[in-house]
Amino acid sequence: MPATTMDELVSLCKRRGFIFPGSDIYGGLQGTYDYGPLGVELKNNLKAAWWRAMVYERDDVEGLDASILTHRLVLRHSGHEATFTDPMVDCRNCKSRWRADQLKDNKCEKCGSTDLTEPRPFNLMFKTAVGPVAEEGSFAYLRPETAQGIFTNFKNVVDSTARRLPFGIAQIGKAFRNEITPRNFIFRVREFEQMELEFFVQPGTDDQWHSQWVEARLQWWRDQGLLSENLQAYHQAGDELAHYAKACVDILYKFPHGLEELEGIANRTDFDLGSHTRSQADFGLSANVDPNEDSTAKLTIPHPETQKPLVPFVIEPSAGVDRGVLAVLTEAYTKESLENGSERIVLKLKPHLAPIKVAVLPLARNKPEIVEKAKAVKNLLMATGIGRIFYEDTGNIGKGYRRHDEVGTPFCVTVDFDTLGRGDDPSLTDTVTVRDRDTMSQVRIPINELAVYIRERLV
Amino acid sequence: MPATTMDELVSLCKRRGFIFPGSDIYGGLQGTYDYGPLGVELKNNLKAAWWRAMVYERDDVEGLDASILTHRLVLRHSGHEATFTDPMVDCRNCKSRWRADQLKDNKCEKCGSTDLTEPRPFNLMFKTAVGPVAEEGSFAYLRPETAQGIFTNFKNVVDSTARRLPFGIAQIGKAFRNEITPRNFIFRVREFEQMELEFFVQPGTDDQWHSQWVEARLQWWRDQGLLSENLQAYHQAGDELAHYAKACVDILYKFPHGLEELEGIANRTDFDLGSHTRSQADFGLSANVDPNEDSTAKLTIPHPETQKPLVPFVIEPSAGVDRGVLAVLTEAYTKESLENGSERIVLKLKPHLAPIKVAVLPLARNKPEIVEKAKAVKNLLMATGIGRIFYEDTGNIGKGYRRHDEVGTPFCVTVDFDTLGRGDDPSLTDTVTVRDRDTMSQVRIPINELAVYIRERLV
Repeated sequence: MPATTMDELVSLCKRRGFIFPGSDIYGGLQGTYDYGPLGVELKNNLKAAWWRAMVYERDDVEGLDASILTHRLVLRHSGHEATFTDPMVDCRNCKSRWRADQLKDNKCEKCGSTDLTEPRPFNLMFKTAVGPVAEEGSFAYLRPETAQGIFTNFKNVVDSTARRLPFGIAQIGKAFRNEITPRNFIFRVREFEQMELEFFVQPGTDDQWHSQWVEARLQWWRDQGLLSENLQAYHQAGDELAHYAKACVDILYKFPHGLEELEGIANRTDFDLGSHTRSQADFGLSANVDPNEDSTAKLTIPHPETQKPLVPFVIEPSAGVDRGVLAVLTEAYTKESLENGSERIVLKLKPHLAPIKVAVLPLARNKPEIVEKAKAVKNLLMATGIGRIFYEDTGNIGKGYRRHDEVGTPFCVTVDFDTLGRGDDPSLTDTVTVRDRDTMSQVRIPINELAVYIRERLV
Repeated sequence: MPATTMDELVSLCKRRGFIFPGSDIYGGLQGTYDYGPLGVELKNNLKAAWWRAMVYERDDVEGLDASILTHRLVLRHSGHEATFTDPMVDCRNCKSRWRADQLKDNKCEKCGSTDLTEPRPFNLMFKTAVGPVAEEGSFAYLRPETAQGIFTNFKNVVDSTARRLPFGIAQIGKAFRNEITPRNFIFRVREFEQMELEFFVQPGTDDQWHSQWVEARLQWWRDQGLLSENLQAYHQAGDELAHYAKACVDILYKFPHGLEELEGIANRTDFDLGSHTRSQADFGLSANVDPNEDSTAKLTIPHPETQKPLVPFVIEPSAGVDRGVLAVLTEAYTKESLENGSERIVLKLKPHLAPIKVAVLPLARNKPEIVEKAKAVKNLLMATGIGRIFYEDTGNIGKGYRRHDEVGTPFCVTVDFDTLGRGDDPSLTDTVTVRDRDTMSQVRIPINELAVYIRERLV
């Protein structure tokens, strides 16, 4: 069985309604993608699993949802305005532009010319004019990361929740980067979604928390179905670290296009809150920060022992939602040879991530009693709130199973003549066949036990 | 009891962590707001209720999540580029700018001058340069509504799901409008969220579907706790309708600042798909559309009877998430005089919308056995997946109740000495007190029945 190729994934995603190119009918808008009927469910399920693990199942994390439009001063003091750049080169021959560090052999990918300019920095932030006056001071940025909205709300969150160290703030949301050369499907795009936690700790406890978060995040990705053998924790060496970072571990995943970053977990010390606080000199910052005469708030919290105002250190596990979707799709995509010599494609998604939880199939779509019963079973499952239940009335059970294998539906429930009490065995009345996606085994379950049977297996 | 004022809501929202001004520590970015720890839960719960009603509990709706960055041609052919404007006037005295139709007495709101320019159209769309070349053709718009992403994906969705009429596509997401004068808290902002359904029907059935959707949407808002007496369905008269609309009903709500639009339900005929389709002339469109030489796709579906390619009509229920949040907060905010002469503020949110589902309070926070038991109860409830469970160890039960009344927590669960079997009545061992937010009544429930008791009351 060969590893999944990107082409296979892209094809499945378009054909079955997971992911489409953005602005498709007008030739596309490079670096943007739209999530279709199944993709939106998969993505929402992944985000819900993260939120549950981060916010609901912990006692020490608050949630947040900050705006995308961001004041220029936020991104000046965060350092993005000066340094959030990629090296860009122009091809002198065909006038195309490229990210210098991604060009193999230093050769234009379009025309093959090696007549390229020297690299110069290109800022990746999108900006837009805000308000009815289009003058220099009136623009805002689209946030290039969700993290800054957490830092600028630190004081608001502490004041409204009375949190003390250690505690974190979690956020899921869109971010935007004007990538010079978007590529690899939803891996490197201009509009994407992040799941970021900023976990604030007392200096001195930061190394231990950093290690704990690396372990917790690796375990979470394994819980989403990624195999250990395809995951790698890469500890950045001293000379690879950003100037403010004390340590950073990249969680790499074996994507179809190579071993690449899925999440980064950085120990950012007090650089971020220190950069955004007023009265910087009062707090004995550890990080080297630029002066800030603009901030109106002291971003401090009482030291757990001395109770003196402290700018805490922060541990940042920052994951890409779209990269997460691509990783779980890569891992789940399976081609199997069946005993009868045919082949099936099956998405072995963890049940909690599956876009459709259950497909209900009437054995025959031209038998009103069976159709009616199948719809009743569908309604029964729908009322349990376990997610999307699909009524599949193609009329061919075998085809229905294949269709749902391909999109990862964990269970197919078939209603037949036995269900109606019209088969050979009267004890099968009011039972249905439940077929398992991965094993393809079938069991007969009483309808009144069906909801519990399925709920127990969806976790 | 006076009606809720906007000031009361704004104050509660900031103080208790529902909603903060965007980019707060740098003086704010007008027309943007950040949802805090409780606000994000309330907003997510409202969106989940909509998604459940639209996608999970129906057989005829697919979901979608399209990108925010939108190709210029999408918004040219939708008509936004030419006509999505508000009338703007300049004050010649103080140089401020205003939305002409919102100025009372035609007088500048800042300096009081009546020396204003004639109104001229101001386009509300944000644009931003995309890609490394900042030339005329390289900008995209931030979508001013989520609807266009549905129309441009119509063909992709039909092809990947094999849907036939009638069916709908639902989407929740951010949209952006460069309002001249944002106002009334989260009611009129520059960055907001929409919940939009485009429901595609056969022409001739559109009036009936339009009526059905008006009723369904009114009922849904009532299910979110809005009282009928505060809701009004306003049928736009012929001369109020957009040129393409056959009918439009606004659902108005009695907000603190007045009776204003919460949702609009329009019969948009075949204007949208007709505007975006290629080969417009082949389909006998009902709407008057501008020519389109750019689209690459025929946005048709087989006519249910003749099977000929048809551009369907569309019914559009379009609701504002932030306006929904503001409405349920307005409705829920209650001041009550208690028997002892004191007053309480209680947010009577529907339980499924409440940010915190249950608060667990130890009677005393300095008794390790009680603390341990309370944490065990918290963990037990957390494992049921019903949402956010809060461990409240302020150590003062009465204060704890008030804190949770104010943020709408439906249930407070108190662990005391009786729970440990150390009270006067041994039959109370392993029971807890469950206190109801609205009635303030308390019942004693065995811990092993607690999850079921609460789950049944959270719907």
